[in-house]
Amino acid sequence: MKTPVTVLGLGAMGTALARALLAAGHPTTVWNRTPGRSPELDELGATRAGTPADAVAASPLVIVCLLVDATVRATLDGVDLTGRTVVNLTNSTPEQSRTTAERFGASYLDGGIMAVPAMIGTPGAFIFYSGVPEAFEKYRAELSVLARPAYVGEDPGLAALYDIALLSAMYGMFGGAQHALALMANAGVPATAFTEQFLSPWLTAMLASIPRMAGELDNGPVDTAGSNLAMQAAAYENLVTAAQTQGVDPRLLVPMGELLAEAVAAGHGDEGLSALVGLLRSA
Amino acid sequence: MKTPVTVLGLGAMGTALARALLAAGHPTTVWNRTPGRSPELDELGATRAGTPADAVAASPLVIVCLLVDATVRATLDGVDLTGRTVVNLTNSTPEQSRTTAERFGASYLDGGIMAVPAMIGTPGAFIFYSGVPEAFEKYRAELSVLARPAYVGEDPGLAALYDIALLSAMYGMFGGAQHALALMANAGVPATAFTEQFLSPWLTAMLASIPRMAGELDNGPVDTAGSNLAMQAAAYENLVTAAQTQGVDPRLLVPMGELLAEAVAAGHGDEGLSALVGLLRSA
Ligand SMILES: NC(=O)c1ccc[n+]([C@@H]2O[C@H](COP(=O)([O-])OP(=O)(O)OC[C@H]3O[C@@H](n4cnc5c(N)ncnc54)[C@H](OP(=O)(O)O)[C@@H]3O)[C@@H](O)[C@H]2O)c1
Ligand SMILES: NC(=O)c1ccc[n+]([C@@H]2O[C@H](COP(=O)([O-])OP(=O)(O)OC[C@H]3O[C@@H](n4cnc5c(N)ncnc54)[C@H](OP(=O)(O)O)[C@@H]3O)[C@@H](O)[C@H]2O)c1
Repeated sequence: MKTPVTVLGLGAMGTALARALLAAGHPTTVWNRTPGRSPELDELGATRAGTPADAVAASPLVIVCLLVDATVRATLDGVDLTGRTVVNLTNSTPEQSRTTAERFGASYLDGGIMAVPAMIGTPGAFIFYSGVPEAFEKYRAELSVLARPAYVGEDPGLAALYDIALLSAMYGMFGGAQHALALMANAGVPATAFTEQFLSPWLTAMLASIPRMAGELDNGPVDTAGSNLAMQAAAYENLVTAAQTQGVDPRLLVPMGELLAEAVAAGHGDEGLSALVGLLRSA
Repeated sequence: MKTPVTVLGLGAMGTALARALLAAGHPTTVWNRTPGRSPELDELGATRAGTPADAVAASPLVIVCLLVDATVRATLDGVDLTGRTVVNLTNSTPEQSRTTAERFGASYLDGGIMAVPAMIGTPGAFIFYSGVPEAFEKYRAELSVLARPAYVGEDPGLAALYDIALLSAMYGMFGGAQHALALMANAGVPATAFTEQFLSPWLTAMLASIPRMAGELDNGPVDTAGSNLAMQAAAYENLVTAAQTQGVDPRLLVPMGELLAEAVAAGHGDEGLSALVGLLRSA
């Protein structure tokens, strides 16, 4: 028999995790605060537990996917976790993950899911893990059912750190794209055509600059690559002005303009974009 | 003989434009405020003009690539442009481009260069153009030497609008990546390995969400795709907290967190990310 697994939390993500486990043949016990969520899991063979304690008692491997860290504490406080490996896939800060690890025991893994629910169980998805290495090795096969696992270290806060770094990068990209789409929408340009023809190819091409920035951070020097910060700071003012003139809220753009101006004022005008990383680090 | 072309401005970009024209065999006259910039152009056969007026007199096609719009006015005011087609590739706002078009005549094209200097003359580069369509048709071949031309309409402000939309998206992506790299650097993780293993593949995968957002904007409904804004707003707080704890300036992240919180407060908590575009539009 395959390892029984418990899933706490049947939101969009917890439901996707439970489905993947059921599809792989794991006896799966589920619990959710609001009963009866995701009825399709019953047809797939899930067992519903009435309380978190009952759900935890049902399986040696307990996967937690609730809204926020406080929800995890509220749900698991007082529950007997003896002999259980808790894998907490709820979004958290590194600090929260370290505190939760101290609290929930000898066999704790923290994780950060790098996927939307539809990607769970498909090759594109991966999950960062950190915490007790033996727990990771013991359940590597089970965890691989959910997504490709990437173990990043024993410090239980590391998975959250990597997760948050990638989410920060993603929201930067999404925010930029949303601003661009708002500008074009206010000019009456259809979003789909603009995105296919210009926005997606452009962002794809510009992605190639990021490994170059990374190389400069590791090896120096911080080169302009033909685009100095003084020129960029000057052009950037046009981005903010144009947003306002087009009736688009410039708020997502403003801080980068301030950072560029400060970089120039601090004497970095003849350097390139990777110089900004240094300014962000020494906050 | 190929069309003689003049380039005003020999910064990093103007120099790259002049090199491409010289490489394609165009008699090329150049002018720069500070004399003697980019001496390699002399070896490649460029003719140096002593004044903007002399440079303009030398060729029917005049390409302008100076720092900002005010520089363009200062450089061309009072210069006789009779019979000249001016192609202004200086970064500008749509409004500035419209004003410049009125001022600089019957055969004006405005452009936005979507490339760094090293990409000029290579297949990856393109340039938005708008303005007098006959001017674009007349010089399409010459302009194609610089980069693939994308003519977006007769309103001379349109090239700047498209340009600024793509630059806004790019700076969002770069800002997100810079923040991520600052987080990892403060944790002692080398940038190159993190970027190759995680950051670049992740951003590449997440790029696929942008056409979906665009489709929702054109066709509705604004779907969560399994990631509702209430959940995202809750997780986003962790991004800002983690930045602070890791000693990284959270400023590039903060406005998106505020926007998410406002979206939830305004009743969009069960919608998806494309709902944010609507909020940005109605500023
Ligand atoms: N969806 C994604 O794209 C995605 C991607 C990566 C990571 N994540 C992370 O995965 C976690 C779950 O996200 P989701 O998309 O599944 O969110 P969701 O669809 O909004 O579901 C939230 C879940 O948390 C439960 N919950 C909320 N407050 C609770 C409380 N006080 N006590 C007990 N349970 C509570 C909800 O139970 P009720 O049904 O009773 O409300 C529900 O099961 C979050 O930490 C999120 O950041 C999500
Ligand atoms: N580099 C890129 O990656 C890139 C990409 C797309 C678009 N662009 C745009 O292309 C334009 C030029 O950028 P760049 O990278 O070539 O900048 P750059 O290397 O900093 O060069 C600036 C140019 O502007 C001239 N200039 C500045 N102030 C002037 C003034 N008051 N009067 C006359 N000339 C003046 C400079 O002349 P001096 O030599 O006398 O200082 C120099 O030729 C900008 O609008 C920029 O936004 C650049």
